[in-house]
Amino acid sequence: MVSEESFDEWYNEIVEKAGLCDKRYPIKGMNVWLPYGWNLMQNIDAIIREEMNKTGHDEVCFPLLIPESFFKREEEHIKGFSQEVFWVTHAGKNELEEKMLLRPTSETAMYPMFSLWIRSHADLPLKIFQIVNTFRYETKMTKAFIRVREIHFFEAHTAHESYEDAEKQVREDIEIAKRFFKKLALPVIFSRRPDWDKFAGAEYSIGIDVLMPSLRSLQVGSVHQYRQNFSKAFDIKYEGLDGKHYYCHQTTYGMSERVLGAIIGIHGDEKGVVIPSSIAPIKVVIIPIIFKGHEEEVMQECKKVEKELNAMGINSMVDERDKTPGNKFYDWELKGIPLRIEIGPRDIQKNVVIMVARDGVRKEIEREELKKIEEELKEFDARLYKKAEEFLMKNMHRTEKLERKEGVIELPWCGKEECGNEMEERLDMKSLGIPLEKEEVNATCPICGSKAITWLRLAKSY
Amino acid sequence: MVSEESFDEWYNEIVEKAGLCDKRYPIKGMNVWLPYGWNLMQNIDAIIREEMNKTGHDEVCFPLLIPESFFKREEEHIKGFSQEVFWVTHAGKNELEEKMLLRPTSETAMYPMFSLWIRSHADLPLKIFQIVNTFRYETKMTKAFIRVREIHFFEAHTAHESYEDAEKQVREDIEIAKRFFKKLALPVIFSRRPDWDKFAGAEYSIGIDVLMPSLRSLQVGSVHQYRQNFSKAFDIKYEGLDGKHYYCHQTTYGMSERVLGAIIGIHGDEKGVVIPSSIAPIKVVIIPIIFKGHEEEVMQECKKVEKELNAMGINSMVDERDKTPGNKFYDWELKGIPLRIEIGPRDIQKNVVIMVARDGVRKEIEREELKKIEEELKEFDARLYKKAEEFLMKNMHRTEKLERKEGVIELPWCGKEECGNEMEERLDMKSLGIPLEKEEVNATCPICGSKAITWLRLAKSY
Repeated sequence: MVSEESFDEWYNEIVEKAGLCDKRYPIKGMNVWLPYGWNLMQNIDAIIREEMNKTGHDEVCFPLLIPESFFKREEEHIKGFSQEVFWVTHAGKNELEEKMLLRPTSETAMYPMFSLWIRSHADLPLKIFQIVNTFRYETKMTKAFIRVREIHFFEAHTAHESYEDAEKQVREDIEIAKRFFKKLALPVIFSRRPDWDKFAGAEYSIGIDVLMPSLRSLQVGSVHQYRQNFSKAFDIKYEGLDGKHYYCHQTTYGMSERVLGAIIGIHGDEKGVVIPSSIAPIKVVIIPIIFKGHEEEVMQECKKVEKELNAMGINSMVDERDKTPGNKFYDWELKGIPLRIEIGPRDIQKNVVIMVARDGVRKEIEREELKKIEEELKEFDARLYKKAEEFLMKNMHRTEKLERKEGVIELPWCGKEECGNEMEERLDMKSLGIPLEKEEVNATCPICGSKAITWLRLAKSY
Repeated sequence: MVSEESFDEWYNEIVEKAGLCDKRYPIKGMNVWLPYGWNLMQNIDAIIREEMNKTGHDEVCFPLLIPESFFKREEEHIKGFSQEVFWVTHAGKNELEEKMLLRPTSETAMYPMFSLWIRSHADLPLKIFQIVNTFRYETKMTKAFIRVREIHFFEAHTAHESYEDAEKQVREDIEIAKRFFKKLALPVIFSRRPDWDKFAGAEYSIGIDVLMPSLRSLQVGSVHQYRQNFSKAFDIKYEGLDGKHYYCHQTTYGMSERVLGAIIGIHGDEKGVVIPSSIAPIKVVIIPIIFKGHEEEVMQECKKVEKELNAMGINSMVDERDKTPGNKFYDWELKGIPLRIEIGPRDIQKNVVIMVARDGVRKEIEREELKKIEEELKEFDARLYKKAEEFLMKNMHRTEKLERKEGVIELPWCGKEECGNEMEERLDMKSLGIPLEKEEVNATCPICGSKAITWLRLAKSY
């Protein structure tokens, strides 16, 4: 893991050096996705698509533009977003009759259609998602994948008969998120955000955060319970079994390219990025170790190993470029390919291949046991997860005293907003919220001294 | 095929009835992609992605917004598009210092980066593509997938050392297009567009057209040779082997959601859309024909067949809904699923399944020979192609007299713009252009009477 001090500089450089994005596009916060970065992002999208299909969500694609009048229907929502939307006011030489905005998120584009689609209880639950780009006029300093103005975005939207059905959906989303982040070897923290920091228009919000090597938290996803806040604003009603009409209960689940930012940040090291095998476009790179007189023999063996691995469904590639092995190691370490296999004349003689994982683990593998590579990839991902989890655990501090520590602090909290605000101010940190699971707290709020009812998590955050 | 007279009405209805899109979104020309339509479009995208990978193109993703100053660098290009771009002028409460437009196509977003990426001949050829949505402020009547304001778009951009290398790319693009459209069972016409109708900024343009049942042509793709027009405007230079600097030669290849519009229009019939198996999300739907007392037996057999087909890689699904077989047939015909299999107690006894292709072909297939379904799917696609090709051939008229016919007319042409224009006017048709292959023409231009040098194709077009 990259050290705390050098993290931000390292991160800003590595995203370009590893060929993930190009930040020289002339609009602040809008970067070009380079082939490798885009490939990784699409592989991340594929995992969430699979999860969505498994849980009965249908994929749709809504228009980018939203008429101003639709955007303004839900009061809290417009308040939350009005400072950060881009406005389309003209087309060709004409001024538009009604301004349109670029979606910052799609509630106000989707819900007018929900009110047409949903007629009766038989139409529920409605579970859809889309993967699109969204736009937010960030005024803070931008950072590749982490704070950008054009955001590659995943959003699931659901509508239900009852609050309890919507609550079930929230629980399903949490399970999906757990499986999703586990596949990416990212340990995450779920917190119910304090009311003063919930999503604009939500009844409550659950934030999904990771801890970056800079010891700042990064929100990588969120699940929102909307209750009937939007269905009332957008007139989304269903006819119940009793023939009466009721407003739907709604939820959303969102994530973004920040997931890639978290992977880069948390798994990376001084040599470059480190990609879990679950999303690596190439899982194994094979490097011929050529000695004079053995060129053909070595290359043939490399090709054979490549073919066998690909036949097992393990994407592999021989690096045939005219470079030294050392230079090739450097390139693939920079890109974070999970495993490299080295094959030289002696290995052929010994009937083995040398495997070196991106995290340094080195093994000799019997040529006949190439199948083991599958297991090695799983173990590699597991090591990444474990390392990240240890880092997170080491830097989560449950304490009763109001003193600043690096990482995430959990303090006993009475539940009053003013006390939460004062903790934030005095620690110069932001609240992440409270744990999802209720637990007994035998401590007092360090601000007001009254009995604490929960723990409040705080951190410096991106 | 749907009849000429009823086509437009049929098309406008079927796109919604088959669950492809919802046109009730409140912005003209911006529709909602429904799950089935979006699934089909993604399967079409997957075919072009595969072709791009095979031919060494890398996928990227450029920002949506383009600063006005970039857009204005190539004079012809801005002239061609300035009437139809959407402008972002404000963000939050602020007026932007420089206006930005929503990409109508991405030349002016990409090429400033090309000038940073390309340094030497070793960087060439540069071959990239992206699949994104583009935006054009259409003033004509909109039509789902065919004329919309938010367009799902594929664009490949390449840069080369020489004009001849760029010409080779144009030829490769034509081969890619041939394979691509063949997979979709769409016969296409390649024409070199007349100069007055080429792409804004191109040296020349090749249009790829289909003929719709309305006997109007529809452009479904285009390949452009830019020569150095953009590289000079955007300063895209490389250092040659001789140490001198040269401007690159560039090409593009573009297609859009119109491909789906063509599939719907050309293959569809009164019962609904008809989907080639190459992109059908479900290739075979299995309908249990239940008789009292045989419920369990039939359902078990259906499940077994489903399992066997899926194991062969043929996406299949048993329709277990509580509906009559007739109602199920109706639903799946509307959606255009290539094959349906019917299984009743008698079929089980006879050890067969009944297969009915979406185009009406009906066969009894031995239960042990389920593997044949693979062949049946191929034959189904081949029949779709053949039928569309026959329709196209029947409606392409090579003639020497200037008289209006339905479909595509080929007239001898002297090559002069004024004669081409007059043909267009007198026939009330638009030029598609001239055939790509040179051929001897023993006829005279019907306008000026001088010797024709080629054939000019004309049609009513969308």
